[in-house]
Amino acid sequence: MSLLAPHHDGSERYVSDGAPEVASSVSVFLRVPHASRAERVFVRSAPDGEPRYVAAAIDRTDQRETWWRADVHMTNPIMRYRFLLEDGTAPYRWVNAAGVFARDVTDGADFWLTSFAAPPSWLADAVVYQVFTDRFASSDLQRDWPSWAAVSGWDDPVRRDWRVSTRQMFGGDLVGLQQRLDHIVSLGANTLYLTPFFPAESAHRYDASSFDHVDPLLGGDQAMIELARAARRAGVRIIGDLTTNHTGDTHEWFRAARDDRASAEAKFYFFESDERDDYVGWFGVKTLPKLDHRASELTERMLAGPDSVTGKWLRAPFHLDGWRVDVANMTGRLNDIDTNHEVARAMRATIADVRPDAWLVAEHCYDASSDLRGDGWHGTMNYSGFTRPVWCWLRDARSEIGQLGYPSPPPLIDGGSMSSTMNDFVAAMPWRSTAASMTLLGSHDTARWRSVAGDAAHQLAGVGLLMTYPGVPTVYYGDEVGLTGENSDVGRTPMPWDAARWDQQVLDGHRSLIAARHASPALRRGGMRWVLTADDVVVFLRECLDETVLVQVSRAAHAPVTLDTTALGLRADAVALYGDQDLVAKDGKVTLPVDGPATHIWRFEP
Amino acid sequence: MSLLAPHHDGSERYVSDGAPEVASSVSVFLRVPHASRAERVFVRSAPDGEPRYVAAAIDRTDQRETWWRADVHMTNPIMRYRFLLEDGTAPYRWVNAAGVFARDVTDGADFWLTSFAAPPSWLADAVVYQVFTDRFASSDLQRDWPSWAAVSGWDDPVRRDWRVSTRQMFGGDLVGLQQRLDHIVSLGANTLYLTPFFPAESAHRYDASSFDHVDPLLGGDQAMIELARAARRAGVRIIGDLTTNHTGDTHEWFRAARDDRASAEAKFYFFESDERDDYVGWFGVKTLPKLDHRASELTERMLAGPDSVTGKWLRAPFHLDGWRVDVANMTGRLNDIDTNHEVARAMRATIADVRPDAWLVAEHCYDASSDLRGDGWHGTMNYSGFTRPVWCWLRDARSEIGQLGYPSPPPLIDGGSMSSTMNDFVAAMPWRSTAASMTLLGSHDTARWRSVAGDAAHQLAGVGLLMTYPGVPTVYYGDEVGLTGENSDVGRTPMPWDAARWDQQVLDGHRSLIAARHASPALRRGGMRWVLTADDVVVFLRECLDETVLVQVSRAAHAPVTLDTTALGLRADAVALYGDQDLVAKDGKVTLPVDGPATHIWRFEP
Repeated sequence: MSLLAPHHDGSERYVSDGAPEVASSVSVFLRVPHASRAERVFVRSAPDGEPRYVAAAIDRTDQRETWWRADVHMTNPIMRYRFLLEDGTAPYRWVNAAGVFARDVTDGADFWLTSFAAPPSWLADAVVYQVFTDRFASSDLQRDWPSWAAVSGWDDPVRRDWRVSTRQMFGGDLVGLQQRLDHIVSLGANTLYLTPFFPAESAHRYDASSFDHVDPLLGGDQAMIELARAARRAGVRIIGDLTTNHTGDTHEWFRAARDDRASAEAKFYFFESDERDDYVGWFGVKTLPKLDHRASELTERMLAGPDSVTGKWLRAPFHLDGWRVDVANMTGRLNDIDTNHEVARAMRATIADVRPDAWLVAEHCYDASSDLRGDGWHGTMNYSGFTRPVWCWLRDARSEIGQLGYPSPPPLIDGGSMSSTMNDFVAAMPWRSTAASMTLLGSHDTARWRSVAGDAAHQLAGVGLLMTYPGVPTVYYGDEVGLTGENSDVGRTPMPWDAARWDQQVLDGHRSLIAARHASPALRRGGMRWVLTADDVVVFLRECLDETVLVQVSRAAHAPVTLDTTALGLRADAVALYGDQDLVAKDGKVTLPVDGPATHIWRFEP
Repeated sequence: MSLLAPHHDGSERYVSDGAPEVASSVSVFLRVPHASRAERVFVRSAPDGEPRYVAAAIDRTDQRETWWRADVHMTNPIMRYRFLLEDGTAPYRWVNAAGVFARDVTDGADFWLTSFAAPPSWLADAVVYQVFTDRFASSDLQRDWPSWAAVSGWDDPVRRDWRVSTRQMFGGDLVGLQQRLDHIVSLGANTLYLTPFFPAESAHRYDASSFDHVDPLLGGDQAMIELARAARRAGVRIIGDLTTNHTGDTHEWFRAARDDRASAEAKFYFFESDERDDYVGWFGVKTLPKLDHRASELTERMLAGPDSVTGKWLRAPFHLDGWRVDVANMTGRLNDIDTNHEVARAMRATIADVRPDAWLVAEHCYDASSDLRGDGWHGTMNYSGFTRPVWCWLRDARSEIGQLGYPSPPPLIDGGSMSSTMNDFVAAMPWRSTAASMTLLGSHDTARWRSVAGDAAHQLAGVGLLMTYPGVPTVYYGDEVGLTGENSDVGRTPMPWDAARWDQQVLDGHRSLIAARHASPALRRGGMRWVLTADDVVVFLRECLDETVLVQVSRAAHAPVTLDTTALGLRADAVALYGDQDLVAKDGKVTLPVDGPATHIWRFEP
């Protein structure tokens, strides 16, 4: 990891075609700084399972580096590849996504080319805003609350007993959300991720009782149609949230199944005997019966085709722009049954059919790479490859908030460890799967990032990473005004609409960092090269065909970082895109600011 | 990598059941030296796709370490797991097969438990001797040589033009082999791997013209039956060699297919048009038409059931003890078709049916891990995880022999790099897949190890590693008497039977090292802990329930290695199992010999 090391990644500067057809050829480029003295370069792939070496040619060379080009033939739907480099000292070194190796390594970190349809192109420009439907905005809709609901006033606290808080209804609805679209737009977000809008018997609605209509308590179908229209006019896309792993036990399918074991719906669930209540629930929870995707009728109703649940909501009049898939990691998996990839592929086929530019993003809380080969989910919620390492670097050292399912508090790590974890996850999957994954600092399933970070400055340093790292940055509603919550339940606070209660510094920081991302093609779709990582500061380049951006994020004041302008590719001074200090070259060097916690972003010509 | 680091692997000291049933529980053990100060230990697995942490209990503790025990439930057919360790300093550290990490890592190096049938238990005790059928021993069988054969006298040189050498018949046969079984037995080998014995039109016979009988030029079926009987009496098993990727173009199936496109056999191959010669050959070689395993009739004839080719030869009167599968890495793979795992599983099902203790070992020349999950091939020819790293450490630095398909000569690496590459491959697959893989220093597809090593001493250091490393050690005929050959063609020299032409030092070394392996259960089935790696010397422990063995292999004279007896677990002096110096403890330390190239092996109580 250095400006002096050879580099390749899956972004546009290094790969001629990120969505190649089978049987086509893709040019892949390796940039080799002159310090590496490459004499010959080969690309190794394994068509039909046998290694093949193709000699690379010099594409171009300048005062700092040489770009080598070779073709990878897409013999198979997925091609892995790596580079072999002869540098005149060692017989050879390998370059893969994990780095440079003077010894043989496994194929685990080989680069990827996949011939499956590319993720939607709009993802590169998306900034997502996640809304927890009951807690974002209320229009004072008239409604009859059901008996299970613990109705609360908007300014009431979230109850600390989760058995109450999951039933605690504050009355957020889609009309209210539509009325607050301007807040989302003013932040710079252009995509809404809505937690479930289907009827259910909880505040979170992950226990759907139907997938056929929008919960009347949220305003019903009509509110959704109007929200979608208003959002579209405002340039905002909307992603829904589908529970493919389970339904609620009040779901119409489940009631039919339980009442009649001869029904088609009985095959949708895992009944283990003729007993009425002998079925598999998610983690044993009986209110959340698990779906059995071996049932072809379930595939038809839920996943496949324009009239399935998946298809219906992507079409008129709802026009969803994609699905976040709840508990995608467990979907279709039970004992010796594993239909997970079939579910993902069925949803992708429906997307290809009815809405080719819809996004399919999977919840997954650890290493999703084996589910992200490209033919199923486009991406994941990148908790493992982004949220966790950022938390571990920027978290409040005095606090133990943030276990996220682990039995231990998160470790406090240095910048090098953070980047190593991030790199591991980038290397484990196709580049475009990382690029099509949500990056996030928190969600309805975590403590609030502000509480993990401890203060506004550390929170904003995280937002600095969020808006500059590959992936689709996602802001959890209210994070931008400094909401707190030491666990996921109390983090689901109703959004305060009295601006006097907002942390204006944090809101301004969000707006400026999002604006910087929108202003920079390199931040949105560039490759990623780490320049330097230290205890308290990390520096990296994002580079696309027509722009290079240098990012420095620090968690504390730190020793000055001085970089060589030639190695950096900096031809003249660089303009601050975020932060107020331009980069001024002097005697072939630039020295970066030493403040922290802070984010600095500079743009320069490639 | 140190005696002070926590350790776990898939061997019997650490896993209560290496072949668990689905829904059973397996106890896994983590040994933690007191220097690591573990306070709590958890094992993490991911049943049905969701992480689960189970607290470990202290199983036992002694003056140097504590053994923690936790149960992994076999919810799914394959369970990956890793340990989380709280040590009172960092919040946690992970222990996986790649080592110890104070930051989050992907699941790539998690340990494996698989519920598929275990590889045959006899593999742990096997030492394989590979015979290239035409070149090992001749009985002066009377035969009419076909016109394609370039008949040579036993002492003639192998011709350097491969177009001649592949047709060059020296007249080795199975009767001759049977007459020389005593040589194999005297070496200490107890398993024969025979390159193909089917009729063909080449010296290597990888272009079979039939799978129904033994080549009459080798003595026919009767010679095989008698060889099998004699071998069984001598305690020697026999592995055959099957080409699942292709047949010869003279094969009866292919001739039927080419003559009649309406025949069942026409579906066995990839014809691309109605043209007679428009079919896919291996690497475009028209004499080796590639098999299309989508044809169910091919599955029946070749792979599935007692009467298939796979089944027939495992049964009476031939009684093969397994198959080495040629070009297994490419079998069933062509463009968007990949039936590789189906082929492997079909062969495994036949084995389960007709001969549950037969071995299925796949040729593979790079990273085979994705094909070695346990339900298909038992293991691979471990070129990548053993041969290559050993070559790169021990090879003659003045020579460039040994490219093994790479465009560059092998690098010369230090002992640490060798062990790192070995570890990478161990971590990439279930432990038992490594243990059921052939380790080898060369084969009919490589240069002779002696030529790569450069001299007898370096050759024997390699044999030292071969006989002490996890896996099934395999000796290529003639390596034990010092045969040379700078590539695979000229390496296929007829075995010299005039002992005056033998390198007696090398033969004695082989015999003694094989004897050491036979004398040591730890070498045969123990776990593996690296103790120290340096430029010119590596030291490791092999440990099973009732024995510990310390191994030191060096490539040159080196600085002395001194080890702490307590950390090592050495209670008294240790006896040399190979080499002539016992280990004598003094003041709590032992100092190892400094000579090299050399192998030393010591045994002590656990």
